[in-house]
Amino acid sequence: MTYSKRKVIGVLGGCGPYAGLQLVKNIFDQTIAGTDQEHLPVYLSSVPGDIADRTAYLLNPETENPAYSIAALLSKLEDAGAEVAGIACNTSHAPAIYEVICSELERKGSSIKLLHIVDETIRFLKEISPLVTRVGILCSDGTYRTKLYENQLMDAGYDVIRPPEDFQHMYIHQCVYDEQYGIKAQSSPVSSWAKDRISKAAAYFEENSAGALILGCTEFSLAVNTHTLNSMQVVDSVKVLARALIRETAPSRLRPLPGTGKLQQNSPGQVYSEIIN
Amino acid sequence: MTYSKRKVIGVLGGCGPYAGLQLVKNIFDQTIAGTDQEHLPVYLSSVPGDIADRTAYLLNPETENPAYSIAALLSKLEDAGAEVAGIACNTSHAPAIYEVICSELERKGSSIKLLHIVDETIRFLKEISPLVTRVGILCSDGTYRTKLYENQLMDAGYDVIRPPEDFQHMYIHQCVYDEQYGIKAQSSPVSSWAKDRISKAAAYFEENSAGALILGCTEFSLAVNTHTLNSMQVVDSVKVLARALIRETAPSRLRPLPGTGKLQQNSPGQVYSEIIN
Repeated sequence: MTYSKRKVIGVLGGCGPYAGLQLVKNIFDQTIAGTDQEHLPVYLSSVPGDIADRTAYLLNPETENPAYSIAALLSKLEDAGAEVAGIACNTSHAPAIYEVICSELERKGSSIKLLHIVDETIRFLKEISPLVTRVGILCSDGTYRTKLYENQLMDAGYDVIRPPEDFQHMYIHQCVYDEQYGIKAQSSPVSSWAKDRISKAAAYFEENSAGALILGCTEFSLAVNTHTLNSMQVVDSVKVLARALIRETAPSRLRPLPGTGKLQQNSPGQVYSEIIN
Repeated sequence: MTYSKRKVIGVLGGCGPYAGLQLVKNIFDQTIAGTDQEHLPVYLSSVPGDIADRTAYLLNPETENPAYSIAALLSKLEDAGAEVAGIACNTSHAPAIYEVICSELERKGSSIKLLHIVDETIRFLKEISPLVTRVGILCSDGTYRTKLYENQLMDAGYDVIRPPEDFQHMYIHQCVYDEQYGIKAQSSPVSSWAKDRISKAAAYFEENSAGALILGCTEFSLAVNTHTLNSMQVVDSVKVLARALIRETAPSRLRPLPGTGKLQQNSPGQVYSEIIN
């Protein structure tokens, strides 16, 4: 068959399971393909029972670092043939986890190309909305406390709106983690309780003059699938990572963003008016 | 971690890509889990470029039999640790393909337990609707011509409604395969063109007194997500296969069917009033 020599994309899912699926679906959605055979080769590993909670580790580093099992699962994807990989979990990109994943992979002699969801998201934000300077983030408490997006955004020259800790916990983190109504417990469909909280959080960032809202926890992608929210540009880290994985393996098959006619993201200076839903 | 010794489910996707995702999503949806870690381990292989079109092969056996690449990809899933597997494609279960898959696996010394989507679907139909005797099938032309469901259903004592060949092709097969509007070309969302044809096909089976309608091509599951269609019980082969994969690996985690309070399917004589959506 024609495509069997294509680079295989590895998706490390399982944290959470639906976020892994969401990343794979975004890869398919953003691939130019008219037949089954034209779609790109993807392996998904979803072994959630092996991966300790990322936020729990960041909040209490005495617990198990999920980096070791994530690195082991990435190695398995590489053994199966994956050459480029993405982790469908923002929190796992916090330095305390991500750096250990990378050093573990190096120790194992891995040559898989692992993309970084935060690097890709900020690069995409710059290109899609070059005039935006003030940004809000929907993320877990782990990402909030470690300032994963915040530090990198500030390094890139952005003003970052940091909500008070109780608001962050009650109206943002709990949208994902509430044991009864959170997106991890109910994602198909997402509960109206979680949707209401996301609306409140979005209103908070808009009142604080955010020009863009980053979906910085993969679960939020399951609840927000518009390209703008009120007056804010939405940048969905899962969609961005999916596009980056296609760019690294089959750039000519990357579906153009609506309204641009452009096949490539990452061409500096272009203003994209929409994100693919 | 607690669950790392669980049996791993292998999903052979890629034929088509969204059908593979749909099977994985159905596994997650039908698993009792309140946290990420409680979900079952699943590997998805989606390498569509390697798998020749199944229907094309059944209609013209001089072309490449997709069985060899499917068996090779199943072996890779087994190498990665999968012990039980399902193929997210009904047409691949036609004897001309499925028997070659099985003999290839045997030749390779495989011990993976491969479930058969048609066997599982008919078993489920009997249990959920024990009074139904007359059945319609939404399937590809390949499945129609090889009478994949039809022969097994007749062996099990059912009357099977066989639409005329031109109706089958225009109103059923093309829902999936039309190059512009078919579900393989547009599945996220499914086109209204495809939905309209499915409605017409459903009306045909109902007029012919079908008590149940089998979704016998995985793509139809992307378009029909109700448990009844008009007066017919809908039996979605993808949902059934997902439940069977959970049953084989972690039966205590199988979500009960709505209205039954029962954890297990396949307990003879029970009447289930609904299929999980």
